[in-house]
Amino acid sequence: MQAPLFPAASFGDLRARLADLPAADPTSIAAARVRQDNLTKPPGALGRLEELAIFMAGWQGRARPVLDRAQVVVFAGNHGICRQGVNPFPQEVTAQMVANFTRGGAAINQLCRVSGADLSIVALDLDRPTGDFTEGPAMTEAEVLDAMVRGAAAVDTGANVLLLGEMGIGNSTVAAAQARASFGGTAWDWVGPGTGADADKIAIKAHVIEAGMERHAAALSDPLATLAAFGGREQAAICGAVLAARAARIPVMLDGFICTAAAAVLAPLGIGALDHCMVGHASAEPGHRKLLSAIGKKAVLDLGMRLGEGSGAAVALGVLRAALAVHDGMATFAEAGISAG
Amino acid sequence: MQAPLFPAASFGDLRARLADLPAADPTSIAAARVRQDNLTKPPGALGRLEELAIFMAGWQGRARPVLDRAQVVVFAGNHGICRQGVNPFPQEVTAQMVANFTRGGAAINQLCRVSGADLSIVALDLDRPTGDFTEGPAMTEAEVLDAMVRGAAAVDTGANVLLLGEMGIGNSTVAAAQARASFGGTAWDWVGPGTGADADKIAIKAHVIEAGMERHAAALSDPLATLAAFGGREQAAICGAVLAARAARIPVMLDGFICTAAAAVLAPLGIGALDHCMVGHASAEPGHRKLLSAIGKKAVLDLGMRLGEGSGAAVALGVLRAALAVHDGMATFAEAGISAG
Repeated sequence: MQAPLFPAASFGDLRARLADLPAADPTSIAAARVRQDNLTKPPGALGRLEELAIFMAGWQGRARPVLDRAQVVVFAGNHGICRQGVNPFPQEVTAQMVANFTRGGAAINQLCRVSGADLSIVALDLDRPTGDFTEGPAMTEAEVLDAMVRGAAAVDTGANVLLLGEMGIGNSTVAAAQARASFGGTAWDWVGPGTGADADKIAIKAHVIEAGMERHAAALSDPLATLAAFGGREQAAICGAVLAARAARIPVMLDGFICTAAAAVLAPLGIGALDHCMVGHASAEPGHRKLLSAIGKKAVLDLGMRLGEGSGAAVALGVLRAALAVHDGMATFAEAGISAG
Repeated sequence: MQAPLFPAASFGDLRARLADLPAADPTSIAAARVRQDNLTKPPGALGRLEELAIFMAGWQGRARPVLDRAQVVVFAGNHGICRQGVNPFPQEVTAQMVANFTRGGAAINQLCRVSGADLSIVALDLDRPTGDFTEGPAMTEAEVLDAMVRGAAAVDTGANVLLLGEMGIGNSTVAAAQARASFGGTAWDWVGPGTGADADKIAIKAHVIEAGMERHAAALSDPLATLAAFGGREQAAICGAVLAARAARIPVMLDGFICTAAAAVLAPLGIGALDHCMVGHASAEPGHRKLLSAIGKKAVLDLGMRLGEGSGAAVALGVLRAALAVHDGMATFAEAGISAG
């Protein structure tokens, strides 16, 4: 029996607990692969659907994975970097959108309904934005660990898949800073319009990110320190949820640029912390493709979406359901009495 | 009141009836666009989902399109060109797969269940393959018109969307011949592995297609004559169903390479006959991307699928449901009391 990942007393303590993450089950993967090769279709003809079914089999530890319970968790946070004028919307919109989620009026509400997922909304201290990372760390170590615990606690450990999303005015700048810190390049490789920044605002984003990189140069070699440096709470909560899902061997569907950048902070730890993660869609936010390439993942969908709040992951859940339905329900060649090629 | 499209007495008669196809409703398109711009998201942030909702609005003629009834029709046929050894599977597999559809064991059965679609299977004279197009026309004019009528008759005119698929051993060769006839290039631009042809079989495909082009050179300037020249019945039935859906203003979701090539025979008529058609997915069959480019369509999904039988269209139906759910169910900024940017 492994020690639980949370709560951890410090980054060092958390790193120690992460040393032995569970792996996918090779027996279930092999059995799922054999099943796919015997279904009434040319081998490989269902493409990504086959890969998704086999992936789910490995993490759920059964040859025929199920999707009786799908959970979407959307984490919301506010960001001190907004003081630098990185976003055209006022910061109150974060709480207003959380209210919209709660009342059922947002995109994610409709998408959860249509894809058969439960929706959890976790607003993280919206009245207390993180620090401005051009002036100091966005969060303390304790704040990061606290947000991770809250993220982990939001995970329904009985779910068959976990979908993650976020909401936070200013957080495309945070995501770009995290990607820059995690994978190098310049700020310009990672910034984009987000909710609708024009060229001037994008230039401000790039400028504040480079300022942040200079200020936090010492933190860049440590993934958890970069999380503290650039924040925010919803990003830390996403990391906590990703790790809690891993401990419970629940496969995860990440959403777009901001969600992927949040989880990708864990990639440089070199422990395969994202091995159980799929990515729902390739965002229209230009940095997302580079980010997917950096973490070696291929998105399920490419629909030009750039909304966040878990919306792309929720649409991809429909594809995942399709993948498991064919995997489980199709006849084999022997069952159907069909001539081999 | 327009004359019904079918039955037509001859290709000339059909061409005359096609002169005045209904168009999408500009008022519904405009209203859907206004609605999208007022929903609680940055403008355009739902990408393709917004376009799909607006497209559906235009063809259904209502600002908030619905998906209460989705119909999948799979047409099956057999092909004389199989005599030339273009396919590794025996021709009996077509009927065996139809039996598999009927018993519920195929991919399309599971996908219809998961995406909430009704499934119709139409087997077209499987014991009477079309002619070998290297020796003569695959079908007579009367046979083409008969298959078109049967395709049109299969359409549920009360459906909100029609998804089309096909099954027919050897029909990736027919599709490549149709694409070559409709859009030029050489046979090598359009052939591919299909259900699993190796390099030798692909070379046979290319060879028989070029032989067919020589034999039917006089037919290549006439889209309906090329349909007769290269067949087969399921291709003609798909054309009939596409046109019947258009007459009823039902939007259509085409499937992969073979289904698209079948419908694309209508493109050179120059009457916008495919304006009401979406394409569910970009097939792994290499000719499909060229074909999509030739007809100016962008597939909804790109999942490396190459099964046919409507499977990619059925997976895309989930995306279409998502698109209409957000379009219909989301709150506007005014309803949600959210600050403008």
